[in-house]
Amino acid sequence: MRSQVVDAYTTSLQPPARIFDRWLAARLQRAIAPAAVRLELWDGSSPYSRDMSPIGSVLVHDRAALIGLIVDPDLWFGDAYTAGRLDISGDLGTVVEALTRATLGTPTWRERVRGALERPNSFTHARRNVHHHYDLGNEFYQQWLDQDLVYTCAYFEDPQMGLEAAQHAKFDLVCRKLRLQPGESVVEAGCGWGTLALHMARKYGVHVKAFNVSREQLAYARDRARREGMTERVQFIDDDYRNVRGEFDAFVSVGMLEHVGLHHYQSLSDVLRRAVRRGGRGLLHFIGRDAPRPLNAWTRRRIFPGAYAPTLAEVATRVLAPSGMSIVDVENLRLHYARTLAHWRARFKHAEEQIRARYGANFERAWELYLAGSQAAFSTGWMQLFQVVFVPLETAPPYWTRAEMYAESPKWAG
Amino acid sequence: MRSQVVDAYTTSLQPPARIFDRWLAARLQRAIAPAAVRLELWDGSSPYSRDMSPIGSVLVHDRAALIGLIVDPDLWFGDAYTAGRLDISGDLGTVVEALTRATLGTPTWRERVRGALERPNSFTHARRNVHHHYDLGNEFYQQWLDQDLVYTCAYFEDPQMGLEAAQHAKFDLVCRKLRLQPGESVVEAGCGWGTLALHMARKYGVHVKAFNVSREQLAYARDRARREGMTERVQFIDDDYRNVRGEFDAFVSVGMLEHVGLHHYQSLSDVLRRAVRRGGRGLLHFIGRDAPRPLNAWTRRRIFPGAYAPTLAEVATRVLAPSGMSIVDVENLRLHYARTLAHWRARFKHAEEQIRARYGANFERAWELYLAGSQAAFSTGWMQLFQVVFVPLETAPPYWTRAEMYAESPKWAG
Repeated sequence: MRSQVVDAYTTSLQPPARIFDRWLAARLQRAIAPAAVRLELWDGSSPYSRDMSPIGSVLVHDRAALIGLIVDPDLWFGDAYTAGRLDISGDLGTVVEALTRATLGTPTWRERVRGALERPNSFTHARRNVHHHYDLGNEFYQQWLDQDLVYTCAYFEDPQMGLEAAQHAKFDLVCRKLRLQPGESVVEAGCGWGTLALHMARKYGVHVKAFNVSREQLAYARDRARREGMTERVQFIDDDYRNVRGEFDAFVSVGMLEHVGLHHYQSLSDVLRRAVRRGGRGLLHFIGRDAPRPLNAWTRRRIFPGAYAPTLAEVATRVLAPSGMSIVDVENLRLHYARTLAHWRARFKHAEEQIRARYGANFERAWELYLAGSQAAFSTGWMQLFQVVFVPLETAPPYWTRAEMYAESPKWAG
Repeated sequence: MRSQVVDAYTTSLQPPARIFDRWLAARLQRAIAPAAVRLELWDGSSPYSRDMSPIGSVLVHDRAALIGLIVDPDLWFGDAYTAGRLDISGDLGTVVEALTRATLGTPTWRERVRGALERPNSFTHARRNVHHHYDLGNEFYQQWLDQDLVYTCAYFEDPQMGLEAAQHAKFDLVCRKLRLQPGESVVEAGCGWGTLALHMARKYGVHVKAFNVSREQLAYARDRARREGMTERVQFIDDDYRNVRGEFDAFVSVGMLEHVGLHHYQSLSDVLRRAVRRGGRGLLHFIGRDAPRPLNAWTRRRIFPGAYAPTLAEVATRVLAPSGMSIVDVENLRLHYARTLAHWRARFKHAEEQIRARYGANFERAWELYLAGSQAAFSTGWMQLFQVVFVPLETAPPYWTRAEMYAESPKWAG
């Protein structure tokens, strides 16, 4: 299916690879040596010389792409793949995962410089960044997310359960960890298409104020609230989470922290201090890392502007401690995110032609790579998914043991 | 029972309190205002003037003690209580908890200076510090710990269960979190009287190397291993954890990190990097804090030299991240430590006379206060108790969901 795009390059009149090209290719091949992925140049030549037969190939279609991969692989791999100047033969997911494993390591100087040059998310920037990603059109996401449009890590109580059920289970997990009681008030920062807010109100009987700055998502969420008769209990607010006012029994944020950016953890911390009443509790669900490191440059530039996946320590030190919050419970669900992404990729693949027809081949390739790369990041342990439960100082944890945390789930009730 | 000690002071010929004494007392009373604890001077005078009747009193028996409480309350409260120059009427635990709540806050300049002046634990210091606390004599601990001499936070699956059962449940919790399999190898850093090591070997069929530098504890542990026929499977090693050699399936340390000291987290991190094989996992169980802060000065000077209770972020940043470990699961069991301490205090109270007869009244009072203060610290949220499970980078977490973590417990099997 990819051949139309690729052909434009493979059939272009590239001169045969010269000695210099082959020297560069050999260097690149060494850099990804542990991966058993064959590098192949535009004239079919390859420096791959291992006994092991390769699990797949990276086909580089022109010299500029080859040089880009040497000079700035983080950015160029994605850009060249998007443009069809680089292709992958074999299973995309397998090859991307192998390349991810092969290049796990400490940050390069380039990453550090890029990280240091990041600019804070002002209110305007925050809106623009969110718009870049989430306002691509609900129809786009409808083609490959679950029916409720949940764009965060699911929770597969049983590894074989379907995506819809697993997203449902994730929301229940969040609600159980928060021990929501009927009549309580909840504030949600970054509510996506509103599924969690509606779930909490419907199933746990709480009142929710849900914040978001994505217009498309809000319109969709409000419409659902109307259709489900939930407008009394769920208020969708078109505003930045930093403008949350009032005190609540619970604070919840699923998949927003990644977009906040380190520079703004202090404001998030201020929000928590103001918003969570004594005796209340909160939950942060976010993509994280083991050690501080900027996101992959390509992801940050092309897919998620302004995004940063923090370490647990950064969240503890910059968000929770300054707001006087005490950590009660942390769970790392990275393998569940890898599985979630496998589901999304299968659906994406299924809708590939429509997506290409509507958004163009480059867009489709960029997203295909982004989803495969994300799955690889979570399955290798390159990225983590943390759920953190916290309470204000002097407030008792919401459960004596975890047995209570899981008591309301049919799965756990025994 | 306390009267013999106290009488020596109350009957001493202290002059009546002067204007200056009363001014100091009023200042002190204001500092503990939220506590509803009455301050009383040696002549019976008191600045307590609230409508609420006090929950108890702090009786200051001489001027020097009063001045000490103003100048350096962290250190003097404990020292004056130990020496019988200060006494508490009403329930000790209730009063100490109220005082703890009233003085929760940000670190004073005195604490910061003290923290900065802390000296690292050299191998020699480490031995000396451990000796100071743990080699008081096994008989001392036998008088108030459980029958297996477990001197760390227990896990009360049911809040009403007894201490022995709860310590047993704690060890099972640790083993389940580590998912120990028969035949696996485990290294334990800081093994106390050997109960966990023997439990792991007996119940989970693993081979254990357990390190400790407390001679008295080791002698006791080795004797138990012999009596239980476990010498083949459990090796008790008289050495510093920093000298751990070899690779293991699991690393475990329960209640040792508090004695390591921030300056040595790098060496602990090096040990983890060396000792945990790929595919392995580890668990750290330690007293922690929400924000960095030295331990109470008195506790550090009189009870636990060299001790420091880290934040989760400090452990993540200085121990786990540099060793390439990924955090899988964190549980805060602070209320379980408060309950454990309530059990210890009840037993201590029961053995009070024998302890006083053997170790002296001051010693008995110091420990009585230390146990009450610790219980207050955990029940108020002043201190935390973290269990952290981790795996080396690229190693999958040991469970798909927590259901597997708890599957082997009869309590959880449903």
